Amino acid sequence: MTDSHYEALGALLGRGGVLRGADIGPRYFTDWRGEGPVRPELVLRPATTKEMSQILAYCHRESLSVAVQGGMTGLVRGAVPQPGEVVIATDRMTAVAAPDVAGRTIVAEAGAPLQAVQEAAEAAGLFFPLDLGARGSCTIGGNIATNAGGNRVIRYGMTRDLVLGLEAVQADGTVIDAMGSYIKNNTGYDLKQMFIGAEGTLGIVTRAVLRLFPRPQSQAVAYCGLDSFDAVVGFLAHMQTTIGASLSAFEVLWSATYDAICEKVPQVRAALPRGHRFYVLTEMMGSDGARDPERFEETLGMALEQGLLADAVVSKSDAEVRALWELRDGMAHAMGAERPIVSFDISLAVSDMADLEQVLSDRLRAHMADPMILIGGHLGDGNLHLAVRANGVAPEDQPLQAIEREVYALVGARRGSVSAEHGIGLSKRAYLPQSRSPQEIAMMRSLRGALDPKGILNRGRIFG
Amino acid sequence: MTDSHYEALGALLGRGGVLRGADIGPRYFTDWRGEGPVRPELVLRPATTKEMSQILAYCHRESLSVAVQGGMTGLVRGAVPQPGEVVIATDRMTAVAAPDVAGRTIVAEAGAPLQAVQEAAEAAGLFFPLDLGARGSCTIGGNIATNAGGNRVIRYGMTRDLVLGLEAVQADGTVIDAMGSYIKNNTGYDLKQMFIGAEGTLGIVTRAVLRLFPRPQSQAVAYCGLDSFDAVVGFLAHMQTTIGASLSAFEVLWSATYDAICEKVPQVRAALPRGHRFYVLTEMMGSDGARDPERFEETLGMALEQGLLADAVVSKSDAEVRALWELRDGMAHAMGAERPIVSFDISLAVSDMADLEQVLSDRLRAHMADPMILIGGHLGDGNLHLAVRANGVAPEDQPLQAIEREVYALVGARRGSVSAEHGIGLSKRAYLPQSRSPQEIAMMRSLRGALDPKGILNRGRIFG
Repeated sequence: MTDSHYEALGALLGRGGVLRGADIGPRYFTDWRGEGPVRPELVLRPATTKEMSQILAYCHRESLSVAVQGGMTGLVRGAVPQPGEVVIATDRMTAVAAPDVAGRTIVAEAGAPLQAVQEAAEAAGLFFPLDLGARGSCTIGGNIATNAGGNRVIRYGMTRDLVLGLEAVQADGTVIDAMGSYIKNNTGYDLKQMFIGAEGTLGIVTRAVLRLFPRPQSQAVAYCGLDSFDAVVGFLAHMQTTIGASLSAFEVLWSATYDAICEKVPQVRAALPRGHRFYVLTEMMGSDGARDPERFEETLGMALEQGLLADAVVSKSDAEVRALWELRDGMAHAMGAERPIVSFDISLAVSDMADLEQVLSDRLRAHMADPMILIGGHLGDGNLHLAVRANGVAPEDQPLQAIEREVYALVGARRGSVSAEHGIGLSKRAYLPQSRSPQEIAMMRSLRGALDPKGILNRGRIFG
Repeated sequence: MTDSHYEALGALLGRGGVLRGADIGPRYFTDWRGEGPVRPELVLRPATTKEMSQILAYCHRESLSVAVQGGMTGLVRGAVPQPGEVVIATDRMTAVAAPDVAGRTIVAEAGAPLQAVQEAAEAAGLFFPLDLGARGSCTIGGNIATNAGGNRVIRYGMTRDLVLGLEAVQADGTVIDAMGSYIKNNTGYDLKQMFIGAEGTLGIVTRAVLRLFPRPQSQAVAYCGLDSFDAVVGFLAHMQTTIGASLSAFEVLWSATYDAICEKVPQVRAALPRGHRFYVLTEMMGSDGARDPERFEETLGMALEQGLLADAVVSKSDAEVRALWELRDGMAHAMGAERPIVSFDISLAVSDMADLEQVLSDRLRAHMADPMILIGGHLGDGNLHLAVRANGVAPEDQPLQAIEREVYALVGARRGSVSAEHGIGLSKRAYLPQSRSPQEIAMMRSLRGALDPKGILNRGRIFG
């Protein structure tokens, strides 16, 4: 990194637009997994798409590799800079326009926090359904680059389903303005799809047109105890048929996970007695404030009568809705309380989940005495989070690697996904071949080669 | 086309797998717009993905251009062979597997008719929501290649939203097996998106994993008369808020279109008196057979009270549901009854639709005396079908070209889409630049270059 780069990029971005040396705070090399390997030599903070285009054109010409950053809340080491990389941060591109109420769209710049978009929608009487724990820090650009999921995918889809149009800057500085605001637009290739979920390796998203929805007129949550996996599957089908498109969550905890939450997370209160084999949080977000609560209770009553549920409680207030969700969200805290732990974010066919705990436990016993396996997550979307604690081993010990190998081998054998919503980044690239064939990876490489021939964007992420 | 090609390809596909000369019936060079420019010299009918791979590898090696065919129901001349092209038809790849009921998925081969998939889903107690008039002839492969839309996009999305995974064969014969069955799968680039809506120019889809839904438990349709465009917009918002995710159609006819249907289409019966400025067909497909009809009536009652609706009728039986839909579908017949006519399939922001008829009429009067403008369609998705009859001119006259230029210039100026659901094919490629920037088109070309470097797949479609 020479002084001439600093001068040239400073001339493009002005004061505050380029940081170096001690001006570079830890936020530019730290994500939720901790500090990255190096403090970057340069941080570029474009304030406009034009500036983004100019600095990328420069970096491309000079063959400078860049690490693209949003809110630094990713879980797969996609955004911390690697040695030699210049950081491009979107933290000066945070504008959120007033929603188009009739068209039910909103335009936001990449660096806008998710929560700012949610709040702008709400202020206009509308609803932006994407929601994650990191809502206050994560950015729309990061959500798009990683195709973020979250709790309400079952009803509203992934981030991909919420993006109508976007603008992105390619590696050489070319601006792709695909800011359409239409659900239906079959005019050649749907280029926005190329940037969504590509983890910044095919271009840098600078703005997006997002879908908004009518604000739900009702919300009800139930916490249920079930005594077999067949009952879980039957209950999901029952909810999908009776609640239909208003079913907004179907989250399952395996009993060990529920126990761990009750034991390890002080702020939550157990909604149901321990001892059931599975616990389900299910939610309805409907459009009929008058009839929905009755419908929801009736639906649960039918499930109790049919023997699908062993026990259930239903929220009676907004405070109870929050309390039941906290009990579900306690999973992350319970997993975080265990050390050393290896955690996963996988998709599997529902029929391949029934024996997951048992099969995994058997396999892991070849490597360790008493593995603790916590399973839970968005079963309604086929997505589970899973964590394994290796008792009595140090973090650097071999058993941790054995856990990764065993879990991913099992996921691969069942044609599951080694990353349902977190992405690949640097952390999971060794396991990409468990979910993708050599032909698919070759196709990814040719797309990457076509759009970023010098490979300057987030180099090494996704692919080895 | 030499005998050696015939021999080599025949050796790969066997008897019935290769047609030439008089064995090639008109179905292989005729689509819904009529016969294409030439009878092809060879038609290849692979029966398996492996055969598809082998013939594409051969065509790639020999630089033979191919035209890919599904059900030949496209409207933009994408599938009729051009001079020198070999036809690849999917009419021997029509298998539909039994649905996975728990996972709510179904696997179909590319040549399976849409209706066969609908029926297989229904036989398993499930629902495949994609539906078009051509359901009996159009194929799943064609639906995917063109990202087909249809009447229920407002609730269930486009074909893109219904494809969980697919298998495609690239130009050089490489098989991309992306047959995942998960909603959530963030393992590198979402390659299936590259093949959906690419009109066969990036690979040939051979199989797909499709999403199924619970069968709706209720269906109700209303036909409404409204006296201003503001009322239409207000009524749409009202329905979206009160019916929410169960709103399955919101179709609008401009008054001239309603009049034309009543006058020109003998089999339909007017549901409402003529004289309103707009007519809306709206539909609810809900999950509560007991409460939904009451909810629907109540919602319409509120809209009448608020002055949004001037008049409304509600279906009381399945026969009435069908009759009201026939009145909506009469639009295509009414447009077809006029000659000469130029028809369009556009997306526009709803706020840009209010003055569409007036502005277009003013512009067209520069070219012709008394243009008849029929407008209607899926307003809830921002998608209108529009047809203009040029009175007193012959089909080959200049005014028809003037109509195309004026309509597309208006759509381009309003940043609309020149093709909402039909695609580009050969018919609309001259107008692609009205909806796509030079940078976007350049990016499309580089993707095409990366995946089909010799340009053998559906050459000339989409791009000039």
